[in-house]
Amino acid sequence: MADHYPPDTGTYPTTERTRVRRSPKRGSHAHADVHAILDVSSLCHVGYVIDGAPYVTPTLHWREGDYVYWHGSSASRFLRAAEDMQVCLTCSIIDGYVLARSAFNHSVNYRSAMVFGTAHLVDDIEEKNDALRRLIEDLFPGRWDSLRSMTKQEVKATSVMRMKIEEASAKIRNGPPGDVDEADHPVWAGVLPIESRLVSPQPAPGLPDGMELPQSLADLIQSGRLR
Amino acid sequence: MADHYPPDTGTYPTTERTRVRRSPKRGSHAHADVHAILDVSSLCHVGYVIDGAPYVTPTLHWREGDYVYWHGSSASRFLRAAEDMQVCLTCSIIDGYVLARSAFNHSVNYRSAMVFGTAHLVDDIEEKNDALRRLIEDLFPGRWDSLRSMTKQEVKATSVMRMKIEEASAKIRNGPPGDVDEADHPVWAGVLPIESRLVSPQPAPGLPDGMELPQSLADLIQSGRLR
Repeated sequence: MADHYPPDTGTYPTTERTRVRRSPKRGSHAHADVHAILDVSSLCHVGYVIDGAPYVTPTLHWREGDYVYWHGSSASRFLRAAEDMQVCLTCSIIDGYVLARSAFNHSVNYRSAMVFGTAHLVDDIEEKNDALRRLIEDLFPGRWDSLRSMTKQEVKATSVMRMKIEEASAKIRNGPPGDVDEADHPVWAGVLPIESRLVSPQPAPGLPDGMELPQSLADLIQSGRLR
Repeated sequence: MADHYPPDTGTYPTTERTRVRRSPKRGSHAHADVHAILDVSSLCHVGYVIDGAPYVTPTLHWREGDYVYWHGSSASRFLRAAEDMQVCLTCSIIDGYVLARSAFNHSVNYRSAMVFGTAHLVDDIEEKNDALRRLIEDLFPGRWDSLRSMTKQEVKATSVMRMKIEEASAKIRNGPPGDVDEADHPVWAGVLPIESRLVSPQPAPGLPDGMELPQSLADLIQSGRLR
């Protein structure tokens, strides 16, 4: 993860685009809040506009400072269309269902970050290789050096997009339903938390005899961390 | 869930917008495949175009036949902007990380559905109420009738969007890494599956004495189903 020293106490500008209008007390533009959500989620959804129409594509992303990265096939129409285009990249995690006494007060506990910027292809081969290394290492620390090196063809077949975060907001809801004044209505209320975790690894067919799961992956599964 | 009888064997048209170009063997336009992903995921990401720029917002959705629904505050700028607009709604579930012998062959096991259409507000009060009932009942069967009824103000404060699915594609990857020909490279390869589940419920503060978790919610948690 992109740790900062000294701590990053900056904030992204509050713009027309990112001002949190609904439930503003749940919102934040602090770098630390936005980055924490980007870092804890490996999946994001990237929004593009192609010929005036919206497209939302799921992908893995990673972050370095104020830059987010994602990648895909060099033949992807989305990545080709994204060059120099405005993009909205959103990460969302549902932490639980919030069950209240009325349908209206039902909610979800969640963390989401919406970041805006202009996407650019990473052209330089070295830089692209470094970015892909970071993707792998952020997910599986120590793995990169144990892999078969990427061939020139493979690097060429992969497009990496980079976007400086120009505007961003984070929004978080947690805690119980907000309808304590209705606690006498005779229905169970509370939170059903949702947990995502890594479970038993499935070795690939044909692994050489004696090839054990590396300790770093065992630790990752043990920790329950997804990233 | 919206079950079909007889089974829905239809397919959405393969259009320029939805043709699965990358790894087409992973793609499908079958109603059954698209609907299964929409139904198993409660979270979606909706893409709007406002003043030419993309916005991707997370929300809960639900489905009835060929229609998807989502909702929010009537004051939401996204919902207000969405009326009669083209929308892309995407659901994605990561089922596991796929670790290969080379960085290039790393992947994720996933299920995603991308659906396109034109969004419309549900204006009729009765219809809106029915739609919200379905949202609650799809998630928590039997709950609606135990709730305090919605007030007129609450129904008014809630906007429900409906969209007929005009075009759609599903994309699924599962199984081990695809690089068996490199099995002699000395690194562990395989899948790290990801599991999401409901865990111990957290009762709201102030629940009346003796208010137990309903059996239907206990069953839901026991089943591990998220929806």
